[in-house]
Amino acid sequence: MTTQDQRFAIEGYRTQGGVTLDLQLAYQVHGELNDARDNLVVLPTYYSGRSSDNAYWIGSDQALDPAKYCIVIPNLFCNGASSSPSNTPPPFAASAFPHMTYLDNVSCQWRMVQAVFEVETVHAVIGFSMGAMQAYQWAAHLPDVVQRFVAVCGSARTSEHNKLFLDAVCGALRADAAWNGGDYDEPPTRGLEAFSVSYAAWFASQQFYSEHMYRAVGAPDVATFLAGAKMGFMSHDANDLLGMAATWRAGDLGASPQYDGDFEKAMGAIKARGLIMPCDTDLYFRVRHNEREVALLADAELAPIRSDFGHLAGGGMDPEALAFMTTKVRALLAS
Amino acid sequence: MTTQDQRFAIEGYRTQGGVTLDLQLAYQVHGELNDARDNLVVLPTYYSGRSSDNAYWIGSDQALDPAKYCIVIPNLFCNGASSSPSNTPPPFAASAFPHMTYLDNVSCQWRMVQAVFEVETVHAVIGFSMGAMQAYQWAAHLPDVVQRFVAVCGSARTSEHNKLFLDAVCGALRADAAWNGGDYDEPPTRGLEAFSVSYAAWFASQQFYSEHMYRAVGAPDVATFLAGAKMGFMSHDANDLLGMAATWRAGDLGASPQYDGDFEKAMGAIKARGLIMPCDTDLYFRVRHNEREVALLADAELAPIRSDFGHLAGGGMDPEALAFMTTKVRALLAS
Repeated sequence: MTTQDQRFAIEGYRTQGGVTLDLQLAYQVHGELNDARDNLVVLPTYYSGRSSDNAYWIGSDQALDPAKYCIVIPNLFCNGASSSPSNTPPPFAASAFPHMTYLDNVSCQWRMVQAVFEVETVHAVIGFSMGAMQAYQWAAHLPDVVQRFVAVCGSARTSEHNKLFLDAVCGALRADAAWNGGDYDEPPTRGLEAFSVSYAAWFASQQFYSEHMYRAVGAPDVATFLAGAKMGFMSHDANDLLGMAATWRAGDLGASPQYDGDFEKAMGAIKARGLIMPCDTDLYFRVRHNEREVALLADAELAPIRSDFGHLAGGGMDPEALAFMTTKVRALLAS
Repeated sequence: MTTQDQRFAIEGYRTQGGVTLDLQLAYQVHGELNDARDNLVVLPTYYSGRSSDNAYWIGSDQALDPAKYCIVIPNLFCNGASSSPSNTPPPFAASAFPHMTYLDNVSCQWRMVQAVFEVETVHAVIGFSMGAMQAYQWAAHLPDVVQRFVAVCGSARTSEHNKLFLDAVCGALRADAAWNGGDYDEPPTRGLEAFSVSYAAWFASQQFYSEHMYRAVGAPDVATFLAGAKMGFMSHDANDLLGMAATWRAGDLGASPQYDGDFEKAMGAIKARGLIMPCDTDLYFRVRHNEREVALLADAELAPIRSDFGHLAGGGMDPEALAFMTTKVRALLAS
């Protein structure tokens, strides 16, 4: 997708953690708003993803036809496109960049959507991984705005194991003394490499590696596949990677002023029709976890994806999984 | 168990990799050899385990009654008790300690068993994790000696994903510049901590953490549980941890001169009756992997353990899993 990101400025934003700063939200638009202003779909980015990485959702044969929907892709804070440790001037540069929550992201995205599109409702919010967690956050934060949401390989609250996974991969980065608490001139390369390998062991299933399924995506051997993964992660700044991980780690629909720590209340407040699609071999977002969440939702379908790609299945890497997602999402959007 | 380790010296051992050095094999004995000399059970140690950590197998109510069996527990090379980077004098100290394979371990264990016990057969070789892989190696290396073997949460060959898991946890250690290629005066503490957290995310199942099952083993919260895991790993020298991981990573029954790279031939050569017990939530030794291995064995039973403890289930942490293991192993030993 060749569309360039556009930028929306938010001056004097006060984060959930109480820091006030100027922010830039980078976003991409595909398709056009219709006259009824009721065809807007928000498609937030995933961990380490950029707006263009969401291309697999969009197309006349994909889940989201830009001839039918106006699709806006907001970039996560800390992804290097929206405001991030790496691109923010002092006094909020690098390690001084504040912690951003999902609520911070969604609040700013909603401001942008209102200002740019002047809509009162959103047809759907759809996302994969951290994108799924933003979709959940939209639905809980704006129950009267969001009409449908899709959470692929994500959750409404970060599980204890998922936190440990994040601590493990981030710990590998921080083990490099060159990281220096986030105050570095040169990238902490050794730590970034350790981070990438550690992450890669989790983001696909065991059988993806053990049964050489990386060959199906064009890598002749595991070293080539891992080199690609390293290149992807290492195209990001270290503090940016840690910033996105901190957003993820703190994910909890209950943890907003609106719900005051009451997770069940937040889940119960969601009015949107939900489509929850875990992958059955995902190593950190588990079907069992989603099952319990769906039980708290008023109107949601659990539709697990059968794939041996693990978490990556939700990222469009498995054609069969993607076809299943396309069918399910189209049906939801038409409902 | 209060029994002290005994030591067996092997002078001028030539490793599979072609390095000649003097080695010490530390081992523990429980029970006595009977007059027929047919009640010897070998019980090798697991990754980061020491002989005393195998206590959960031994007792009148456990799988191995010392009133009935003579149980010998050899310590893995690199575990800090047998010859290891940390306890070997120059020129083989620290990073100069040679790579030890499972075949090296088993060859030395067999020399010790012959010298100390003067047996021609071994009633059974039993192990968990790297202990399971040694049991497999005994059965393939000495088909006419080993009569039964039990592999709990282990495999005959290290899977591609398992290798990546090892690269991930070891990479976290090596990301600490204080590790310095193995040439350090002070322990690379930051790397060892990152290693421990990364390992802990894998060695129990997702639900063990997310459903707070660590409470069942006496840890009130995840931080306390992780502190225990860190203490265990960090009681080992960094080079020792990497040395054991290298043994594990190279695990492959086919990779011995006897079988010349032919894994199927090695598996087909095993005469011992096998009992293969993966845990259904183990994140690195997978049931599916064992299923394929069992199909190559002449006489083996696959008996998966149902537990939410993940890999740790095979380490005796889950009482129900341990009871199941006890029943199955006793039946095999009596057959």
